[in-house]
Amino acid sequence: MNQKYEELMQHVEKMEALKAAIVLFNWDTETLAPPQATDLTARMVGSLSSQYFEETVSARMRELLGELKDAEDLTEAQAAVVRKLNKNLEDMEKIPPEEYREFSELQARSTSIWAKAKQQDDFESFAPVLKKIVDFSKRFAGYRRKEGQSLYDAMLDEYEEGFTKEMLDPFFALLKEQIVPLLKKVVPKNDAIDVSPLRQSYDTAKQEAFCRFLAGYVGFDFARGVLAESEHPFTTGLHNRDVRITSHYYENVLESAIFSVIHESGHAIYEMNVDDELTQTPVGGGASCGMHESQSRLMENMIGRSLAFWEPVYPKLREAFPEHLSGLSLADFIKMINKAEPGLIRTEADELTYCLHVMIRYEIEKDLIDGSLQVEDLPAVWNEKYEQYLGVKPENDKEGVLQDIHWSQGSIGYFPSYALGNAFAAQIYHVMEQEIDVDKILRSGDLTPITNWLKEKVHRFGEMRKTKQLLRDITGEDFNPRYYIDYLTKKFTEIYEL
Amino acid sequence: MNQKYEELMQHVEKMEALKAAIVLFNWDTETLAPPQATDLTARMVGSLSSQYFEETVSARMRELLGELKDAEDLTEAQAAVVRKLNKNLEDMEKIPPEEYREFSELQARSTSIWAKAKQQDDFESFAPVLKKIVDFSKRFAGYRRKEGQSLYDAMLDEYEEGFTKEMLDPFFALLKEQIVPLLKKVVPKNDAIDVSPLRQSYDTAKQEAFCRFLAGYVGFDFARGVLAESEHPFTTGLHNRDVRITSHYYENVLESAIFSVIHESGHAIYEMNVDDELTQTPVGGGASCGMHESQSRLMENMIGRSLAFWEPVYPKLREAFPEHLSGLSLADFIKMINKAEPGLIRTEADELTYCLHVMIRYEIEKDLIDGSLQVEDLPAVWNEKYEQYLGVKPENDKEGVLQDIHWSQGSIGYFPSYALGNAFAAQIYHVMEQEIDVDKILRSGDLTPITNWLKEKVHRFGEMRKTKQLLRDITGEDFNPRYYIDYLTKKFTEIYEL
Repeated sequence: MNQKYEELMQHVEKMEALKAAIVLFNWDTETLAPPQATDLTARMVGSLSSQYFEETVSARMRELLGELKDAEDLTEAQAAVVRKLNKNLEDMEKIPPEEYREFSELQARSTSIWAKAKQQDDFESFAPVLKKIVDFSKRFAGYRRKEGQSLYDAMLDEYEEGFTKEMLDPFFALLKEQIVPLLKKVVPKNDAIDVSPLRQSYDTAKQEAFCRFLAGYVGFDFARGVLAESEHPFTTGLHNRDVRITSHYYENVLESAIFSVIHESGHAIYEMNVDDELTQTPVGGGASCGMHESQSRLMENMIGRSLAFWEPVYPKLREAFPEHLSGLSLADFIKMINKAEPGLIRTEADELTYCLHVMIRYEIEKDLIDGSLQVEDLPAVWNEKYEQYLGVKPENDKEGVLQDIHWSQGSIGYFPSYALGNAFAAQIYHVMEQEIDVDKILRSGDLTPITNWLKEKVHRFGEMRKTKQLLRDITGEDFNPRYYIDYLTKKFTEIYEL
Repeated sequence: MNQKYEELMQHVEKMEALKAAIVLFNWDTETLAPPQATDLTARMVGSLSSQYFEETVSARMRELLGELKDAEDLTEAQAAVVRKLNKNLEDMEKIPPEEYREFSELQARSTSIWAKAKQQDDFESFAPVLKKIVDFSKRFAGYRRKEGQSLYDAMLDEYEEGFTKEMLDPFFALLKEQIVPLLKKVVPKNDAIDVSPLRQSYDTAKQEAFCRFLAGYVGFDFARGVLAESEHPFTTGLHNRDVRITSHYYENVLESAIFSVIHESGHAIYEMNVDDELTQTPVGGGASCGMHESQSRLMENMIGRSLAFWEPVYPKLREAFPEHLSGLSLADFIKMINKAEPGLIRTEADELTYCLHVMIRYEIEKDLIDGSLQVEDLPAVWNEKYEQYLGVKPENDKEGVLQDIHWSQGSIGYFPSYALGNAFAAQIYHVMEQEIDVDKILRSGDLTPITNWLKEKVHRFGEMRKTKQLLRDITGEDFNPRYYIDYLTKKFTEIYEL
């Protein structure tokens, strides 16, 4: 092995150990830590982050990367590690340390200011912080951007490398053109779908037992993973042999935990299937936010809400809740879990309306960054767009512009990845259906051929190959939103018998 | 504040963050982590340990400590921090780095070799490793020891600063002289105590609920702590606002979890009560292993096995298990939980025989280190001593010399702390009974005056004051094993009506 690379790996090991510690602290804080631990623990996590940062930009790291940047004797994985570390270093070097520190300090405070503002429905108290965040984000994007690149494109590039407004504009235009009218046809027929059978009292311990079965059924490996409870479901991982998901069980909303567990399992299976060569390196995670989301959505929606999937599984759900479900047919159950209904909250949105929530955020972010929209005008614009696209209007900012944490964390340009993830999923699923008999596999009750296919095509590459390349390798074409539109149109036309 | 000290604190913060991460990983491994995570996680914990070690002996740390060693403007807490860091550094500097590395590598393997040997009852396979451990321990103690200090005294000093063979020999001689004969009078009367009511089937979920109540009752603060399950009960902590204990619930041994939870709560309350000024510093833990053990044993035995304690609590236990306990009187319950019966396993020993298990290990360690006993002769000597002092003989090494993990971890000189802890507890308890009306407090159902007294006298000082000093401050005299002997004699004479 290249000797310099070997030395680089010693630094990487330190960095990965620090990163894993931070991941574990965050997991622990969300799932178990005692309430009063917060402040003292935050101090330690802050120190671990600083130590991680110091490693990233250490003088020796800089030298090694300089020497390895053009090395020709590296494997594909090794080259990807060098490229990733180099990008981090370059991005970091462009930002004046003083400004970086200031922004970090702002970020350390801003989410709790947002949380309080949301709780008290008080946008005014969050606005000045958000202004500063927008300002810092623009400045940093300015430092980072390539010649001729717009600020928002530089932001998008952080989350979805190589994706630009030029690609996203037609994507969202298509959504607006096709999905908004589709939704208008769907809504009037909703009265025929009564979900009250799923609103009975379902014992949460029994829900948990069923969800544990379900996670294993879709491919979550409990020898390499943990399922726990937290306020909001999430996935996190230390390496490919320790990936963790959470769920939250609502007594009166049976399908909530079911689909959050399938969703998080989709994320987790991705992480579990990353090659041993890549795990515990800087390219040991998923290819991008969007590609990660594609794997959770594919599992949750394309697989998990299909009739074929539930044919062998629904009897087991009935077994768990015989008194509740004996009178509910599989056909009706499928309609219920696919009911599309415009709402105010993105995280509670169904498959059809979800992308419209994202579209609204995309339009707003673009305007915010190019300066045509001011922070103080956000609530009004937000509410207007919800009325226009979804036909619902928030009664307060808590259910409106204050609902998401992202901007308070400085994540501007992240939202599009959620919609892209759905679109990637549809594009990948289209190929999967041509290469293996998905329906037959689902009916068989053994999903292994599906997870194997995903492992082979997507998971094992971790972040070694970028999303754009992966999409091309798997589907033979570049990103194409058509598959997503077609998928939604076909599915909802069938379910709603339009 | 002293500027150099302030800079030192920046290094301490890094070290404390790394230490906390290691603590959290260990907690997680014992309580939650998926089975296949072990190897990759161990690699990361290894890296964090190395990073911690690097900080401990960094050039800047050395300089700062040199400058601060004799500083006169430090508070008592600050001076204790400097002293502790300095001791670590000095101890470390005396050991040749190559040997340190070799021993660390040996330690990384030795516990699993021991575990396998124990499982397969195969002392032969562990003997060569143990020989190497003894050899390294002697060499390291040789590097560390002060002039004229014996090797074993240098080892004892690691765990119980200032304690020597000269102090321990009369302590254990007294135990041998007084407790061995006492036990011989107790054993024949054991037939009268039938513990079968505690061997019924007790629902483990109900046990857990009761133990959770019990932990809170003795002072464990759930706003600052967590109670979970693991194979063997233990206590660990990140700082004084996050202290964690585990228990293990056996369906047929009601008292097992009860007393392990009280025991671990005793440890935890100590950690929770350390002053804010000391937590997250190198002197943020307990004064010594023995002092820590004194707090768990005082709570478990002096408090937790007393009649006064159970007067308000036993009705609650009966409420939890009415069918099992309605026929069992409090008086009989007290006899059962204080039954003294010689056995083979230290961790399962009762209050009376426990110190004899430790005495055997003390005698063996001394001979092993001064060379009068060879590793290959250990099993025979072990079995002989068990027969002589406890009247029982191990049928195999699994239940004999292989039962404890300590030697495989390189912890030689640690065992005496267990017996010392009990003796410290008795000495401290003696003073407590003079200063507050313990019995009345226990009967009142509110233990706060007791935990407050312990906080005031012991807990708040963390490791700032050494055990020898604390004992003197609290009791007005040096370590005096007489109180322990008197306590055991009085208690068991009463219970067994001798």
